[in-house]
Amino acid sequence: MTIKKICILGAGTLGSRIALQSAISGFTVTVYDIHQKSLDFSQRTMEKIVKQLAKSGQISETEISAIFSRIKFTLDAKEAVADADLINESVTEEIEIKKKVWKQFGEIAPEKTWFTTNTSYLLPSMFAEESGRPAKFCAFHFHDVFYSRVVDIMPHPGTDPVMIPMLEELGRKLNQVPVLVKKENPGYIFNTMLMALIGAAGKLLTREVGSIEDIDKSWMVNFHMAMGPFGILDSIGLDTAWHVTHKLPDAASQAFAALLKTYIDEGKLGEKSGKGFYSYPNPAYRNPDFIR
Amino acid sequence: MTIKKICILGAGTLGSRIALQSAISGFTVTVYDIHQKSLDFSQRTMEKIVKQLAKSGQISETEISAIFSRIKFTLDAKEAVADADLINESVTEEIEIKKKVWKQFGEIAPEKTWFTTNTSYLLPSMFAEESGRPAKFCAFHFHDVFYSRVVDIMPHPGTDPVMIPMLEELGRKLNQVPVLVKKENPGYIFNTMLMALIGAAGKLLTREVGSIEDIDKSWMVNFHMAMGPFGILDSIGLDTAWHVTHKLPDAASQAFAALLKTYIDEGKLGEKSGKGFYSYPNPAYRNPDFIR
Ligand SMILES: NC(=O)c1ccc[n+]([C@@H]2O[C@H](COP(=O)([O-])OP(=O)(O)OC[C@H]3O[C@@H](n4cnc5c(N)ncnc54)[C@H](O)[C@@H]3O)[C@@H](O)[C@H]2O)c1
Ligand SMILES: NC(=O)c1ccc[n+]([C@@H]2O[C@H](COP(=O)([O-])OP(=O)(O)OC[C@H]3O[C@@H](n4cnc5c(N)ncnc54)[C@H](O)[C@@H]3O)[C@@H](O)[C@H]2O)c1
Repeated sequence: MTIKKICILGAGTLGSRIALQSAISGFTVTVYDIHQKSLDFSQRTMEKIVKQLAKSGQISETEISAIFSRIKFTLDAKEAVADADLINESVTEEIEIKKKVWKQFGEIAPEKTWFTTNTSYLLPSMFAEESGRPAKFCAFHFHDVFYSRVVDIMPHPGTDPVMIPMLEELGRKLNQVPVLVKKENPGYIFNTMLMALIGAAGKLLTREVGSIEDIDKSWMVNFHMAMGPFGILDSIGLDTAWHVTHKLPDAASQAFAALLKTYIDEGKLGEKSGKGFYSYPNPAYRNPDFIR
Repeated sequence: MTIKKICILGAGTLGSRIALQSAISGFTVTVYDIHQKSLDFSQRTMEKIVKQLAKSGQISETEISAIFSRIKFTLDAKEAVADADLINESVTEEIEIKKKVWKQFGEIAPEKTWFTTNTSYLLPSMFAEESGRPAKFCAFHFHDVFYSRVVDIMPHPGTDPVMIPMLEELGRKLNQVPVLVKKENPGYIFNTMLMALIGAAGKLLTREVGSIEDIDKSWMVNFHMAMGPFGILDSIGLDTAWHVTHKLPDAASQAFAALLKTYIDEGKLGEKSGKGFYSYPNPAYRNPDFIR
């Protein structure tokens, strides 16, 4: 069951980061996508991250070419999965896309290949059957790989329990802290707690108990953190937060989702769009004067 | 409206800290309690804190005697409040005690005295009338004064709005970050968010989604924090958390309150009793090996 070769499906934000860390950890990696543009972007993203890691001393300059020599980018599904010990699927967060991809790779993957999905809010049981080998299927969910180094291991009811220690070991080799999510839970562990915090902050705002700034200050000063809930929301993206929040049935979530929608309709999606609850690149909360 | 003399009612954990910071900031302070034992304990607590502050360079050794010369401890209510510009009430968190204390001090305080309460979960409107001067009454709520430097300013509907800028200015003089809680809300801003986080963690535990350790790791690693929700609960006290949680009507809170009760019944109250979710003085989460 030793993992040597990892196949990453989807060369986006997360796929690129997982692939890069896999190569840094010494694994052979293939990165598959349906768009050449995505593969090109992925390679540039990795080059940027590697530079930062070298700058901060987390890897040495001399390792860089060896790291990239272990990564292959391809549009060819068969080539991508040939001889792979494990797949991590990081394609677009849409159930129909995930189903299609798992049907495709379930048919062409070698018999030995273990299947993992990096889905954020869907559940592995929603598409494990499509892969044709649900017992070899488990969620293996990264956060951002380099700064937030948690990896969630979340089996669905049909997952073979041998996958759990195997993924714990793999997670540690990938420089992550593995966490076991014992039963399926949307948002795993961290996002469940984060959304509860954000929901409470949203309710304080929509009920006009506190201002955005005072809510964030309360959190930042008490916990000595660099951001409060609204700063965090800006970094997650208000659109992403809306997708989760507007599906919650309670009145407080609905009121907050409606408020998020007014921002989104004005094009304020958070840090990525330059505006959200704060304005970027120099949001008020990063100003030392904010805390006074 | 310049504040020079501050009267602290209740020489417990918080009263002592607020009194000490007031003296450090140059105010004249009287500390009142009904028990000589509490006053003695208060003085010893202040001496300990002052030593730590001197050690970490936040105050200089030469200031210490001047700081203590500004503080008077007394069992005499009239002496305590004589010439006071502001009272901060930090007596035991029980509504009947607060009502009694405010009735007593409303009668003997000079006309100029502003009234503030440090209550954690009660609301100022529950005992502002007892003071006989509700317009001069506002919540002014500290966290722990030295590490978590937020002070909440929470008016009740009858509070004279002039108190808000006055308390903001006073808060800053006391080295705190003032936060305005625009309308009465139990738990102000921070505790509302903290209890939402803790409630989500409790639900993940009682639903057996994750272990205590894995839930804490998820929070600590993603946010680079020294504690997760269960470590925080141990520091708050499981009895205090139970008092808040068991009053919440939803099934998840009730299940978590029931779990907290099993700990409390075994004498596990958290850090203060040596045992809670972790064992003290060396809880597992402070071990560098915890994060792996
Ligand atoms: N962005 C995050 O912070 C984050 C964190 C943890 C997990 N995730 C999860 O990781 C997955 C990917 O998210 P992302 O942010 O990297 O998305 P992204 O949009 O950056 O990348 C998705 C990639 O999938 C590719 N793709 C689409 N259809 C495909 C197909 N049929 N075959 C192969 N590739 C295909 C797209 O071309 C794109 O390059 C999602 O499930 C998401 O929930 C994201
Ligand atoms: N402990 C905290 O972390 C914290 C934080 C913020 C706010 N608070 C709030 O501060 C207040 C005090 O909390 P604490 O933790 O310091 O409590 P504590 O039990 O340490 O101290 C309470 C003090 O009040 C005294 N007291 C009781 N009845 C009195 C009376 N009639 N007149 C004068 N003194 C009387 C007691 O003798 C005791 O010394 C509470 O309202 C609490 O909610 C506590």
